[in-house]
Amino acid sequence: MTFKVGLLGLGTVGAGTVEILQNPAQRHSLLQDLVIHKVGVRSLDKLRNVTLPTDILTTDLESIVTDPEIDIVVEVIGGLEPARSLILKAIQHGKHVVTANKAAIARFGDEIFTAAAEAGVYVLLEAAVGGGIPVIEPLKQSLCANRLNTVIGIVNGTTNYILTRMQLEGGDFADILADAQNLGYAEADPTADIDGLDAADKIAILASLAFGGRIKLPEVHCEGIRHVSAVDIAYAEKLGFVIKLLAIAKRASATDELEVRVHPTLVPKTHPLASVNDVYNAILIEGDPIGQVMFFGRGAGAGPTASAVVSDVLNIAALLKVGHGDITADGKPLLDPLLACSHQHYCAIAPMEDLVTRFYARFLTKDYPGVIGKLGTCFGDHEVSLESVVQAGMRDDFAEIVVVTHDVREGNFRKALEEIRAMPAIAAVASVLRVL
Amino acid sequence: MTFKVGLLGLGTVGAGTVEILQNPAQRHSLLQDLVIHKVGVRSLDKLRNVTLPTDILTTDLESIVTDPEIDIVVEVIGGLEPARSLILKAIQHGKHVVTANKAAIARFGDEIFTAAAEAGVYVLLEAAVGGGIPVIEPLKQSLCANRLNTVIGIVNGTTNYILTRMQLEGGDFADILADAQNLGYAEADPTADIDGLDAADKIAILASLAFGGRIKLPEVHCEGIRHVSAVDIAYAEKLGFVIKLLAIAKRASATDELEVRVHPTLVPKTHPLASVNDVYNAILIEGDPIGQVMFFGRGAGAGPTASAVVSDVLNIAALLKVGHGDITADGKPLLDPLLACSHQHYCAIAPMEDLVTRFYARFLTKDYPGVIGKLGTCFGDHEVSLESVVQAGMRDDFAEIVVVTHDVREGNFRKALEEIRAMPAIAAVASVLRVL
Repeated sequence: MTFKVGLLGLGTVGAGTVEILQNPAQRHSLLQDLVIHKVGVRSLDKLRNVTLPTDILTTDLESIVTDPEIDIVVEVIGGLEPARSLILKAIQHGKHVVTANKAAIARFGDEIFTAAAEAGVYVLLEAAVGGGIPVIEPLKQSLCANRLNTVIGIVNGTTNYILTRMQLEGGDFADILADAQNLGYAEADPTADIDGLDAADKIAILASLAFGGRIKLPEVHCEGIRHVSAVDIAYAEKLGFVIKLLAIAKRASATDELEVRVHPTLVPKTHPLASVNDVYNAILIEGDPIGQVMFFGRGAGAGPTASAVVSDVLNIAALLKVGHGDITADGKPLLDPLLACSHQHYCAIAPMEDLVTRFYARFLTKDYPGVIGKLGTCFGDHEVSLESVVQAGMRDDFAEIVVVTHDVREGNFRKALEEIRAMPAIAAVASVLRVL
Repeated sequence: MTFKVGLLGLGTVGAGTVEILQNPAQRHSLLQDLVIHKVGVRSLDKLRNVTLPTDILTTDLESIVTDPEIDIVVEVIGGLEPARSLILKAIQHGKHVVTANKAAIARFGDEIFTAAAEAGVYVLLEAAVGGGIPVIEPLKQSLCANRLNTVIGIVNGTTNYILTRMQLEGGDFADILADAQNLGYAEADPTADIDGLDAADKIAILASLAFGGRIKLPEVHCEGIRHVSAVDIAYAEKLGFVIKLLAIAKRASATDELEVRVHPTLVPKTHPLASVNDVYNAILIEGDPIGQVMFFGRGAGAGPTASAVVSDVLNIAALLKVGHGDITADGKPLLDPLLACSHQHYCAIAPMEDLVTRFYARFLTKDYPGVIGKLGTCFGDHEVSLESVVQAGMRDDFAEIVVVTHDVREGNFRKALEEIRAMPAIAAVASVLRVL
């Protein structure tokens, strides 16, 4: 029995996918049942690293998703359109879909999964988060007995690379970003990475799987790393923390509401995520009764991403090979309830002002002796209890005060901050960061 | 549709399993399709933490594995017999099996998987390695597109706890083992953990999955941690290493032979496994094209182990729910080729003398000035190239020399060591450890 694969896109991930499919030796024997039937590209003339029979290349991507011979469509063109339309059309034509497209899934997951459920096909997306790191499938299968309560990830390699270098070199954000761009670790337009948008897409997907409901992407709170300074990294270091861009999803036990957020965070040096450096990604999952598990690896690149794409294709092929026994009342094949995406409701997301977390804040002040008392009183008035207040040093003739709070309600902290900002003795609220 | 589960054993893992099955809220909805049909125990009168209808408890374990109503048998009694016989009988009666029993699988995997293939049933064993950490299923499914070449694990919590405390406290093995026994982190008879036998079982299972062949357990080279001393931990620390009990399986690219071995190892502090401390486990897998991925979490305990057991049960239930479509020529249902265990040949294991690795060795000598030259010459004669030779200090009137080699063939190193041991100037070869 062979399964025909239609590939949309032959960029780095597409070429990596072909590379694996053409070299099945010492890989799972099921690979030998896969055939590359058609490959959709933008230009037939481009020089490529992989060799394919020219008659399977086509610039007509629609002809792939509608081809009656194709069983599984692999979408690795990325971006929102035409990816979304091609995925939907493939589903309508009864094809199973494998995609690496976190942006499309995070935005259009609801219509894509609804269409897939109606058509009785799988849409698998291991490559969308963490490159080759197995995390989507473990969430669906290996951890399915757990009541999950927390997912925390370092899921963007570019920002982790920049923050790691800032940490090691003491350099400033702008310089290291420029260098990362020169080295190819950051894109010419780095917005999606630097401003946390890519991480927000990914945590929306992970939260949806961990908590069994859909997530509205605009409800994901998202802050990037542009405002993280060398000064704060140095103070954090002294206090026993490193600064990481974390993507966090948590279920509040009391209300069943979710927190879903992306922001730079002070992480205690002893925390398992603190030593995840450079372009590496890691995802920490906490549940009952498993406790903490963490998945670590390269979060991007042709090889890791293609590994995830082809593994997804093989997982579908394995199910097709067994064959469908039962048929639903309306004549569609039954899908594996762990691998199919069945939830249809939207998760309630808690507003950020209700978040309970620790904060780090740095103030510049002219009148140090009087200010500590005023700060303390103001925070106290808003039920913000302080873990430490330190006059950290002098900067530009200002005394620098660094405050770390205990767990506080974010709304209360913000109100205190507004009052503090208005104090004549306070020259600036130089930075505010959350603490894990 | 409901699926009936027969549970063999109601110890800590069994009770943890019941706990999850009785509390499906906020877990995967498929849990609601599972029914605990019978539970086999040694004594009906024992006080337990879980409440079960008394009529489903039985001391007749055979009646469970032969019960025509039961779909899935969960074996959590541990040990070799009657576990092996019960698993085999369950398979003969057409039941799918979930087991946490690494000792039985590592020893009797060949007959168990042969029987399972003949009967057309699944035998899943996520809980056998790394407690709740997903590693068996990722090896079977999420990483199946890769050509795997290395699996390195810290897979025994007891020894990792002891080595971590030796590292932090500078204490000696015997004292810390005694304390670990008092605290319940090590068993009264610690042999299986301390001598590496438990880790050997686990790496045999991981190697079998990673490299698609059976492993003969006696061919796994196994050294425990009894001879690891505080002195060596301190020297390793100075040289930039920590000492961990590693379970290693590697495929040699040239010969296709495997190395499968368990031994205390000097691990560079920058290596991802170096910071895995206390009772935590981690498994690092390397493949083409994925590169390195690592899985981390608690490797034992009722909760994590039960998480893995119930997830396996759900994975079988999911496949049963879809239903079997195709039937093999001899009338058996087709199994999912990724989840079923299909390999039947034995992997060729390379002899340890052919291993190429780095070594650390510590010598006690009376005549320091003359000895370095003799050591160097002797190692050179056997093609053992040295990375560093340091006179580390004095101990009991002897000069202590610590040697770290480059990658060398183990057989050559051993021959050199024999000659060195016979040198009059050498009072003792105090320790020999491999370096990652």
